[in-house]
Amino acid sequence: MQEITIGGARHARVSYPLDAIALAPSRRTRDTRLVDVTWQFDAYTFALPILGAPNDAVSTPDTIKTMGEHGVTGVLNLEGLWARYADPSAIYAEIASLAPTVEATVRLQQIYSQPIDEDLIGQRITELGAHGFVAGRFSPGNVERFQHLAVEAGLDLLVISGAAVTAQHVGAENSTPLDLHSFTARYSIPVVIGGVASAKSALHLMRTGAVGVIVGVGGATHDTTGDTLGVNVGLASAIAEVAQARTRYLDESGRYVNVIAAGGITTGGRIAKAVALGADAVMIGAGFAHATDMPAAGRYWSLNAGHPTYPRGPLTAVETHASLAEIITGPSHRPDGTTNLADGLRRTMGLTGYASLNLLRDAELVVTQRPTA
Amino acid sequence: MQEITIGGARHARVSYPLDAIALAPSRRTRDTRLVDVTWQFDAYTFALPILGAPNDAVSTPDTIKTMGEHGVTGVLNLEGLWARYADPSAIYAEIASLAPTVEATVRLQQIYSQPIDEDLIGQRITELGAHGFVAGRFSPGNVERFQHLAVEAGLDLLVISGAAVTAQHVGAENSTPLDLHSFTARYSIPVVIGGVASAKSALHLMRTGAVGVIVGVGGATHDTTGDTLGVNVGLASAIAEVAQARTRYLDESGRYVNVIAAGGITTGGRIAKAVALGADAVMIGAGFAHATDMPAAGRYWSLNAGHPTYPRGPLTAVETHASLAEIITGPSHRPDGTTNLADGLRRTMGLTGYASLNLLRDAELVVTQRPTA
Amino acid sequence: MQEITIGGARHARVSYPLDAIALAPSRRTRDTRLVDVTWQFDAYTFALPILGAPNDAVSTPDTIKTMGEHGVTGVLNLEGLWARYADPSAIYAEIASLAPTVEATVRLQQIYSQPIDEDLIGQRITELGAHGFVAGRFSPGNVERFQHLAVEAGLDLLVISGAAVTAQHVGAENSTPLDLHSFTARYSIPVVIGGVASAKSALHLMRTGAVGVIVGVGGATHDTTGDTLGVNVGLASAIAEVAQARTRYLDESGRYVNVIAAGGITTGGRIAKAVALGADAVMIGAGFAHATDMPAAGRYWSLNAGHPTYPRGPLTAVETHASLAEIITGPSHRPDGTTNLADGLRRTMGLTGYASLNLLRDAELVVTQRPTA
Amino acid sequence: MQEITIGGARHARVSYPLDAIALAPSRRTRDTRLVDVTWQFDAYTFALPILGAPNDAVSTPDTIKTMGEHGVTGVLNLEGLWARYADPSAIYAEIASLAPTVEATVRLQQIYSQPIDEDLIGQRITELGAHGFVAGRFSPGNVERFQHLAVEAGLDLLVISGAAVTAQHVGAENSTPLDLHSFTARYSIPVVIGGVASAKSALHLMRTGAVGVIVGVGGATHDTTGDTLGVNVGLASAIAEVAQARTRYLDESGRYVNVIAAGGITTGGRIAKAVALGADAVMIGAGFAHATDMPAAGRYWSLNAGHPTYPRGPLTAVETHASLAEIITGPSHRPDGTTNLADGLRRTMGLTGYASLNLLRDAELVVTQRPTA
Repeated sequence: MQEITIGGARHARVSYPLDAIALAPSRRTRDTRLVDVTWQFDAYTFALPILGAPNDAVSTPDTIKTMGEHGVTGVLNLEGLWARYADPSAIYAEIASLAPTVEATVRLQQIYSQPIDEDLIGQRITELGAHGFVAGRFSPGNVERFQHLAVEAGLDLLVISGAAVTAQHVGAENSTPLDLHSFTARYSIPVVIGGVASAKSALHLMRTGAVGVIVGVGGATHDTTGDTLGVNVGLASAIAEVAQARTRYLDESGRYVNVIAAGGITTGGRIAKAVALGADAVMIGAGFAHATDMPAAGRYWSLNAGHPTYPRGPLTAVETHASLAEIITGPSHRPDGTTNLADGLRRTMGLTGYASLNLLRDAELVVTQRPTA
Repeated sequence: MQEITIGGARHARVSYPLDAIALAPSRRTRDTRLVDVTWQFDAYTFALPILGAPNDAVSTPDTIKTMGEHGVTGVLNLEGLWARYADPSAIYAEIASLAPTVEATVRLQQIYSQPIDEDLIGQRITELGAHGFVAGRFSPGNVERFQHLAVEAGLDLLVISGAAVTAQHVGAENSTPLDLHSFTARYSIPVVIGGVASAKSALHLMRTGAVGVIVGVGGATHDTTGDTLGVNVGLASAIAEVAQARTRYLDESGRYVNVIAAGGITTGGRIAKAVALGADAVMIGAGFAHATDMPAAGRYWSLNAGHPTYPRGPLTAVETHASLAEIITGPSHRPDGTTNLADGLRRTMGLTGYASLNLLRDAELVVTQRPTA
Repeated sequence: MQEITIGGARHARVSYPLDAIALAPSRRTRDTRLVDVTWQFDAYTFALPILGAPNDAVSTPDTIKTMGEHGVTGVLNLEGLWARYADPSAIYAEIASLAPTVEATVRLQQIYSQPIDEDLIGQRITELGAHGFVAGRFSPGNVERFQHLAVEAGLDLLVISGAAVTAQHVGAENSTPLDLHSFTARYSIPVVIGGVASAKSALHLMRTGAVGVIVGVGGATHDTTGDTLGVNVGLASAIAEVAQARTRYLDESGRYVNVIAAGGITTGGRIAKAVALGADAVMIGAGFAHATDMPAAGRYWSLNAGHPTYPRGPLTAVETHASLAEIITGPSHRPDGTTNLADGLRRTMGLTGYASLNLLRDAELVVTQRPTA
Repeated sequence: MQEITIGGARHARVSYPLDAIALAPSRRTRDTRLVDVTWQFDAYTFALPILGAPNDAVSTPDTIKTMGEHGVTGVLNLEGLWARYADPSAIYAEIASLAPTVEATVRLQQIYSQPIDEDLIGQRITELGAHGFVAGRFSPGNVERFQHLAVEAGLDLLVISGAAVTAQHVGAENSTPLDLHSFTARYSIPVVIGGVASAKSALHLMRTGAVGVIVGVGGATHDTTGDTLGVNVGLASAIAEVAQARTRYLDESGRYVNVIAAGGITTGGRIAKAVALGADAVMIGAGFAHATDMPAAGRYWSLNAGHPTYPRGPLTAVETHASLAEIITGPSHRPDGTTNLADGLRRTMGLTGYASLNLLRDAELVVTQRPTA
């Protein structure tokens, strides 16, 4: 681990965000038709190594269906708008029309102050189940309370996510903190947990029995956690650290835990870089927000944008320029890599000569020291 | 200490500003209700580890009262507007209406050319004393001349601050330079001195008997000392250095001196980072300037903005968007961390799993090498 | 090779773009009239070490003639507009009038969907041959199919270029991948291949028998390959690496292979830096786009701007401010170094005291760590 | 010397510009009235360690007189407007009215195409001599031709300056290159030569007998030499290197050569930093351009802005905001350090506790690694 010294006495580890890293070509190139981008995850095989993030702005019952048709596994936030409103379409329409200013935050706080309706949780899962695989998300604080509803309704994959999630949460005396070890052991369906940013924390999460850990702290697009709370680890470094923990845990347990990178991944090249650093898949939120077929098209907001006392993330205006299908599988009519993510990933693998996601981990990494003005 | 070589022969120490540093999550998280942010300082316990900076723009008899009600210890500048004008409300109203251009500097120079009225010094302290704890500030050059007035009026804490303050000031022949050793020894109330930026200078200040040293040189918000005079040390490095001096001085004397970080601290995350680096508390100036209930709301100016021959710091337009109370204790309706500083601090401690300010010093530090355009 | 560690387990090599590097003066200066900038390349001697890039935006039969008159060897893209349209002048006029927005990408895709007309390939080469030396470009995927047309028509120099080209391309089963070893061995005219970015890949390309390799991956001006696909190596580092491979190959084979740097080279100073790092010559595309005498004057687009499913590079508005002749050999009436490239190169050599391109490789390199805001 | 490796095989030295460096406070502070800023130079004592750069935009017979009255030694360009026009006032008025666009470069080229009038050289020196010390500048290429005129007219100090000046210039066959060794040995008045950027080149210049060397290559304000020609060394590193050469030359010869730093020095803090790094004085051009009493007030252009074939430096619009006297000795009414340079220098020395320019060389240097967006 690279370290620097702060003020003579303190040490800090050096961390790199994904954009500080690039891939170098190898001595081989490969036809993109000979590149395999399927993702083996637990008992499943997915056409693309991409999860749709459990953000209300992008993952809805409808868009998750579209994602699935194009190889992406969408995750519904089971504490979001779809769990609070029987029909949130008017809410989405209103959000789409809100000016992206600080006043929007106040309105988002009001919208999210609507209590969770437990009946809706099961109902959403049942609806999604009609199209196949169902993945849903709870926060660490609510999962004990709601999980039975999800299991009963037929959830296939449970995502437990928060700004930072650990296996050793210290709760208040009058609360029932989530005991992940106990929870995952007795839970009947696979669990993915995160975000996490270091080998040690990841190892503890892996030991709870999770099938996947989400890597990424402070870095989600338009989520200001990193800036406001000062808790931030560069995603490239975090992925490499957690991938190392996965190897160690595989050695100690014989069990392979998937590493899922999240935070600002919006192009095929970034997916490829995350995989090259050791991720098995990525989770995409804001990257899908440019779709014309989002219910609040033109607006994006993060998971914590409506927090009652400490909102982290503005309502953001985003340009809509392609269908969700085009964003995922193209064809692209833009030169910026934000559409046709699948082909972008394949082209990066072709340019660097790797035939599969696993082999891409051999790619040579480059950090370019650009001049600064 | 990290060093680099300049031109083959000269050495420079590498320093980091607060924003170059982030905190990494640990393997624990903690409910924010189980986080203790109280600050033990000398004989006092304060609800928050925050001092209000002795800047006329933010610390006035009225705002110091509000600060106190929300756990912040405001410091009045005993050489500022409140010591020069019996009723500075018209002055504040005028400053609020000044265009934030260079012409404003000329007007500030005129405003601050009004002589200090010694009677007002005691009067302000007496007024503040009606609400409890009274902290006031003199410059090193004036403290010998005015301090008896402050003691007589019942000052509880004396802050001596300037661009850089040392225990060994060389004064002109016809001047009476402040002998801090002698002064602090014979002075009856606790003294906080700064700014300082290195272990050695801090150690000398600690040996004068000060109960606290302010860390921060060249970096105050909207104070151009660092740029114009080229005297500047990154705050993160300066805090770590001075915290190391505190440990050394504690070993040699058995006395614990508080380290107070100042300069650009405007969010709960930055408070947490300062504490993680070794600060006991922070001093906030510009961070309070966004309050709607400031007497010159919408304008901020630094301590040296009205200097007669070498002003350092422009009159700046600031957006006002919350009450002072909301800035300190929330609730927040903004996604940028500038409101609800107390909750921001608690959330950072919760995310990183530390129960008290002292324990937060164990937090892992991260320096992220972001790509440059 | 300088390496850093990412997340404890992964290594990355540090790479520098051309603009991160500068040259230091030596203890000699030299009259620019005593500076020799001729380039010995295979059996040829060129007045300047500059190739015109095979981009439709800048290299046309007419502009290649002008380039040749001023010492630059233009390369025609034998798969571009001139191979698809008998008279592309209306196409150029239309492109010049397109607004440089994303809609232009859609139109470029339509324009480039016109099939290649094999008859035109030979015809263009014949036309160019009337003025002397003829250099043309194919992509790796098409060169086997079209090369005989080029040989028959009298091509003097074949350039095979793509985003990344290797000697070991893995093709699809139903395709005929280019076997560069076999191809170059049986090919009758000199071949230049690229882009490449590492010593190892370059060595493999040299061993195919190429007379020159193009260095540069991900960095061409207004080509977004580096950003969208995440494949990117700083040009300065890439040149130095490949130059080292050239020395090694010269040792093993006795054959000197020319290193041609490409990507963002738009001033005489950058040409000089590329040469100082080890390049024999540079390839210029966007640097010529400012010419008033381009057929689509005011617009620039990269080789992949019209790709049918994954376009990389926007149609860009460029200021036109000098004739192509003035850009190459001056005189200059601008202070930004974009005109009079030849004199810029000579002046850099004069300032640093080197008499020839080969000697310039002894120049001392400087990396300046500029402050960041 | 700090070095990095480029591409595995090439080495580059790391260089720092002045703004990458700051000074740290020491454990002493000092009353600014106890700070001595006089400069001992050859047989002279100057009130300030500042030369006015030989740029037509700022150093004219009139402004040099004003400079002298405030402690600054102005240098007239003896090849500039004052040597080409008997009365350049109309020229200055025209330049003041030119729009700062590229068309201005064309007009500057015309203005400077007016031949040098040898009679004017002596006349200017004689005029300046009426007010005292006279310093004038020739380029290396012209100094042999014109120097006798300067000696006859009573020049006190000769400055020979160019983009890079070395003791070993290789001239064209039909030219008479300047042999600095011979020239300086037989020359009757003190000579200052530059710019230079390395210890080795500086040592060679010192051995010619020069009393001062100017440090600075590629970095003058609004001179684009560094960008266009790629010849650039960070000024902080260059000063430290040349100062080291001065010590070595003092050891070998017993003669102390003054080091004069030039390039972007516009505040008292930057003067202090240059001195702390080892400079004896600085040369200021653009820093004086903000004066209201310049003949082309509101415009600045560099020495090479009117070059006939390769101009380097645009005509720049500058804000005029204080008299030349206020810029030098104040008082200041601005918060940006561009006025009252003398007090800025004294304050920096006071804050860091050094009593004289020589002692300031003991100052601790700091390089701050700021975060990048």
